[in-house]
Amino acid sequence: MTPPKPITVIGLGNLGSALAETFLRHGHPTTVWNRSSAKAEPLVAKGAVRTDTAAEAVTASELVLVTLLDPPAAREVLAGAAEAVRGHALVNLTSGGPEDARELATWAAEHRAEYLHGAVYAIPQTIGTAESSINYSGSADVHEQWKAELAILGKGTYLGVDAGRASGYDVAVLAGMYGMLGGFLHATAMATAAGVSASELTPMLVSWLTDSFPALPTFATEIDEGDYATDESSLAMNQAGLATIIRASQSQGIPASTLVPLKEMIDQQIDAGHGADSLARAVESLRNSA
Amino acid sequence: MTPPKPITVIGLGNLGSALAETFLRHGHPTTVWNRSSAKAEPLVAKGAVRTDTAAEAVTASELVLVTLLDPPAAREVLAGAAEAVRGHALVNLTSGGPEDARELATWAAEHRAEYLHGAVYAIPQTIGTAESSINYSGSADVHEQWKAELAILGKGTYLGVDAGRASGYDVAVLAGMYGMLGGFLHATAMATAAGVSASELTPMLVSWLTDSFPALPTFATEIDEGDYATDESSLAMNQAGLATIIRASQSQGIPASTLVPLKEMIDQQIDAGHGADSLARAVESLRNSA
Ligand SMILES: NC(=O)c1ccc[n+]([C@@H]2O[C@H](COP(=O)([O-])OP(=O)(O)OC[C@H]3O[C@@H](n4cnc5c(N)ncnc54)[C@H](OP(=O)(O)O)[C@@H]3O)[C@@H](O)[C@H]2O)c1
Ligand SMILES: NC(=O)c1ccc[n+]([C@@H]2O[C@H](COP(=O)([O-])OP(=O)(O)OC[C@H]3O[C@@H](n4cnc5c(N)ncnc54)[C@H](OP(=O)(O)O)[C@@H]3O)[C@@H](O)[C@H]2O)c1
Repeated sequence: MTPPKPITVIGLGNLGSALAETFLRHGHPTTVWNRSSAKAEPLVAKGAVRTDTAAEAVTASELVLVTLLDPPAAREVLAGAAEAVRGHALVNLTSGGPEDARELATWAAEHRAEYLHGAVYAIPQTIGTAESSINYSGSADVHEQWKAELAILGKGTYLGVDAGRASGYDVAVLAGMYGMLGGFLHATAMATAAGVSASELTPMLVSWLTDSFPALPTFATEIDEGDYATDESSLAMNQAGLATIIRASQSQGIPASTLVPLKEMIDQQIDAGHGADSLARAVESLRNSA
Repeated sequence: MTPPKPITVIGLGNLGSALAETFLRHGHPTTVWNRSSAKAEPLVAKGAVRTDTAAEAVTASELVLVTLLDPPAAREVLAGAAEAVRGHALVNLTSGGPEDARELATWAAEHRAEYLHGAVYAIPQTIGTAESSINYSGSADVHEQWKAELAILGKGTYLGVDAGRASGYDVAVLAGMYGMLGGFLHATAMATAAGVSASELTPMLVSWLTDSFPALPTFATEIDEGDYATDESSLAMNQAGLATIIRASQSQGIPASTLVPLKEMIDQQIDAGHGADSLARAVESLRNSA
């Protein structure tokens, strides 16, 4: 067995601290850096080496994990370590959009570093457990070479060489989740205004949503093929249904603020002559509004 | 065995025609009325009796089902039959808000009719099958006395004497479903813009949403108790996460039109000093904006 390899963690917020702790627990020589150096102290107490600059931290290990607040912070910190990154494997777990990841991948290539992006599906407490999973995209070499070390953090899935792909999935899935959560909150506001408690409503809503899921792959195929001919859930039917919900909501004094924009997306497609087409065509209103 | 009792169906759109056909198939003497009388013809061919006025149709049967386009249409048609409804059991399956159902229940009481409201979870093709279910609220007597006849249409659940309760559930659940669908469409717009097909995204989104469902009962309890103290998903954390998603969406040329209002709901609660409270508190922004 080869001894555990050195690893560097840059950024010691909630997530970065959990990563560094996990590597230390697994015996990896761990070098850490954080803008406000106090956050390194608990890790130093557990055996981590703290450096004064991000560049020194990069130099200490071939594998460098980056977990900063947001893409501008990641760009800023890496720019400060630009001379040091050559030949290192940068694994950036900072959340952002696909463009952010691609931009840093290009920057890394220019500086002769290898770049892998990761989208983390975990909270700091679950890092290093079976409940944590991370989607990666970017350098296949980095993913292959550091597979064992990355597997310490959680279940890893490699989505391809486009560094933006993991983030593309991530932000899309999260947008979908927030849509569902917005719907849930709106539903509870309407139910409680009508004398039905949120706790009574929730099981019924969950079962209704679960029953609706089988419709989604059909919508997805329509979207991918751009062919919205349907005998099922037409834009016109949904326009009428949604108008009833919005009216009911507003008459309860609840503004339906997250549903009105969906109705506008539907209206726009119907106004363009597509009323008989599938509800899925409403996605075109999002695409065309750029 | 008593012979099948006479039943009247008022309104022969897609749903009403399916109801009348189902009762005919089960041997009930069925009387029908529709504004444009041509829609009665296929039913007359199967043995239904067509009347010239809604009042005559009401007079024909003790049990009268009403399925019209919307609450104003239902009010208008019933007003025209006001002299006839006394002593009859009105079961209104017209979709609307809880206030609409309560208004008609009051009108029915004034005219000495009994009123039960139904929210239909079925499409015309599934009426009369195990896939159809209907939530009722309003007159317990009507529900009890006509249980067998109503059971022909689908599985019935009685939610209480408040005539608005079934609609209250219905519009709330549908609002939640449209939120989820809006999120799905937004997610596919973002994914496809990033080179991930909607069909690749959908299983991942469905599994993420399914994994999120266990959080909803906790949010529901917080909403019912008005106690939003939490160690879990705070408004502040979600504000930052949602801002990243919205920024990523907008940088892809996709306006995030259904998520921006959710962010505003969150912002409003944080601005009021509740950043450490649960995400569920965002519902208060919907309640307070009346
Ligand atoms: N926490 C999670 O459960 C989780 C899960 C999935 C993904 N993520 C993502 O992981 C990243 C980090 O999350 P977190 O929860 O660890 O955040 P956090 O606790 O807020 O930590 C943010 C870190 O960024 C640093 N930072 C911010 N701006 C900086 C700048 N301009 N220059 C240098 N350092 C800067 C902070 O340094 P200071 O200490 O000096 O302020 C701190 O170390 C985020 O992109 C987040 O979306 C987190
Ligand atoms: N279809 C479903 O799958 C389904 C499922 C659940 C709930 N619902 C609800 O059931 C109700 C009926 O739905 P549907 O699909 O049967 O609708 P539909 O096919 O559009 O039929 C609408 C009916 O309303 C009548 N109508 C409209 N305005 C009227 C007025 N001012 N006076 C008299 N009659 C009027 C129409 O008569 P004309 O023929 O003269 O136009 C027609 O009979 C709606 O509230 C709907 O939301 C439907």
